[in-house]
Amino acid sequence: MYRYERPVRFQEIDAAGLLFFPTFLSYCHEAMESWCGALPGGYAGLVGERRIGLPAVQVEASFRAPLRYGDVARIELEVTRVGARSLGLRYQLSRAAVRGAATAEATASEGGACAVIDQVVVCTDLSRMQSLELPPELRALAEQHLAAQREPI
Amino acid sequence: MYRYERPVRFQEIDAAGLLFFPTFLSYCHEAMESWCGALPGGYAGLVGERRIGLPAVQVEASFRAPLRYGDVARIELEVTRVGARSLGLRYQLSRAAVRGAATAEATASEGGACAVIDQVVVCTDLSRMQSLELPPELRALAEQHLAAQREPI
Amino acid sequence: MYRYERPVRFQEIDAAGLLFFPTFLSYCHEAMESWCGALPGGYAGLVGERRIGLPAVQVEASFRAPLRYGDVARIELEVTRVGARSLGLRYQLSRAAVRGAATAEATASEGGACAVIDQVVVCTDLSRMQSLELPPELRALAEQHLAAQREPI
Amino acid sequence: MYRYERPVRFQEIDAAGLLFFPTFLSYCHEAMESWCGALPGGYAGLVGERRIGLPAVQVEASFRAPLRYGDVARIELEVTRVGARSLGLRYQLSRAAVRGAATAEATASEGGACAVIDQVVVCTDLSRMQSLELPPELRALAEQHLAAQREPI
Repeated sequence: MYRYERPVRFQEIDAAGLLFFPTFLSYCHEAMESWCGALPGGYAGLVGERRIGLPAVQVEASFRAPLRYGDVARIELEVTRVGARSLGLRYQLSRAAVRGAATAEATASEGGACAVIDQVVVCTDLSRMQSLELPPELRALAEQHLAAQREPI
Repeated sequence: MYRYERPVRFQEIDAAGLLFFPTFLSYCHEAMESWCGALPGGYAGLVGERRIGLPAVQVEASFRAPLRYGDVARIELEVTRVGARSLGLRYQLSRAAVRGAATAEATASEGGACAVIDQVVVCTDLSRMQSLELPPELRALAEQHLAAQREPI
Repeated sequence: MYRYERPVRFQEIDAAGLLFFPTFLSYCHEAMESWCGALPGGYAGLVGERRIGLPAVQVEASFRAPLRYGDVARIELEVTRVGARSLGLRYQLSRAAVRGAATAEATASEGGACAVIDQVVVCTDLSRMQSLELPPELRALAEQHLAAQREPI
Repeated sequence: MYRYERPVRFQEIDAAGLLFFPTFLSYCHEAMESWCGALPGGYAGLVGERRIGLPAVQVEASFRAPLRYGDVARIELEVTRVGARSLGLRYQLSRAAVRGAATAEATASEGGACAVIDQVVVCTDLSRMQSLELPPELRALAEQHLAAQREPI
């Protein structure tokens, strides 16, 4: 499991006063980029230099609780499947902390899942928009996470 | 079926040169807002004055083809279910037109589905974050669409 | 003067409940893109096919009143200067209408300037990031606007 | 001087392949929020609980070089003026590093200013949209920065 945290931004709030729900998916993408930071050049190197990307083809999301300005989002990424040309990824989003408000209520609500999001991403040649086999170093990173998750604790 | 169109914006493109996939969901939300324009005060009146919203609790999305800068996105909204406190909505996104480029290729690719997105939205009291029965005028709007879709053609 | 209108979007609101101020500049960009719609291929053709863009190098903005969800923004674009490789553009943003709320207060507040934004944009070869002379059709469009503004009414 | 760094995000790139210029202003806002982290409750506490904000009323920006995906933006905030109800703030944006690419070219371009942005922000009662005197703790924070900048080195 790979953990990524980031504050909810002032401008990510919608007119209902909540984190706009498509932005949950942006947070997942950020977590994936951060996870790919272990690769040489990171996700930016993959996209910018090699013109390879990991667009989502399937998304299943369940939203349970909102995030608000002042919250810090915690995104936990798990690899659920490693295919020849695709990856299954699961993201659990929760509230890591309420910045500047250490009340009992805030503490109580920490850690509850705000959203669970399952994705299939396909390794894609961005110039020709065709699927590709996973680059070996990305496959290795994904398989290592998959194996770590399967280990008995 | 309710149809909504809007151009892909310059700033909605990501580093891969494609419409950023969470933004497909923003387009769906825009289409829903536009559909709610038939209600007095529209979605803005619902949210701003009555503090009632329709947050998504379930999303299932399948992405088939990208959208790019210069494309016009067509979003077709269908009501799939009317519950006491929730709605099922289906969005089909496609490419309406390539602005300023009426080539054979562009014409051929019009109308192909870029994404299909199913959502469950729950009518919510935004002040207390509790589910609510659908306001009668929203229920009427949704039922009218549902009925129209079921009619034999 | 070129006029462009668009509703303030649900997700463009910030945690203060107002249109996030950098988004005023996005609206200006949209207005400029819309204005360039008079060119063959539009701004998308310029950027996508010819790799020519009009990045801003100077911005002076004065913000006077907020925009909110439910407002329709009116953006009025004026050409203030046509250089060999650059354009001066002035944008006046105001509230065109309050959707779904035709109260006296709403009517009274229509038309008041929300922001005035002056920009210098430089015609740029996006591949080499070097300034370029304005393409003749863009120059013609800009000069025509400049002339129309100078005419006695 | 207060320094804030953050990577350019995948989705912040525009169709020209560059960081969308209004997003430079979002980065400035983030830096200001981060700077206000020294206050109890941070900027989120100010906005959410006390309904006090610091909207920009004047912005002067000069853009000199682009930022791209893979860059880390460095934002340096200086307090230039402390008024009774307003603050003058200057932001210098530069490229902190190219992630995953330690070439000579990358190293050479570090530190060059990408943008300089001057702002006047007014302390505002967000419920009534009226200016307010700066809260004492914010005034103290601002004066401390102003004094530190004026000190001989």
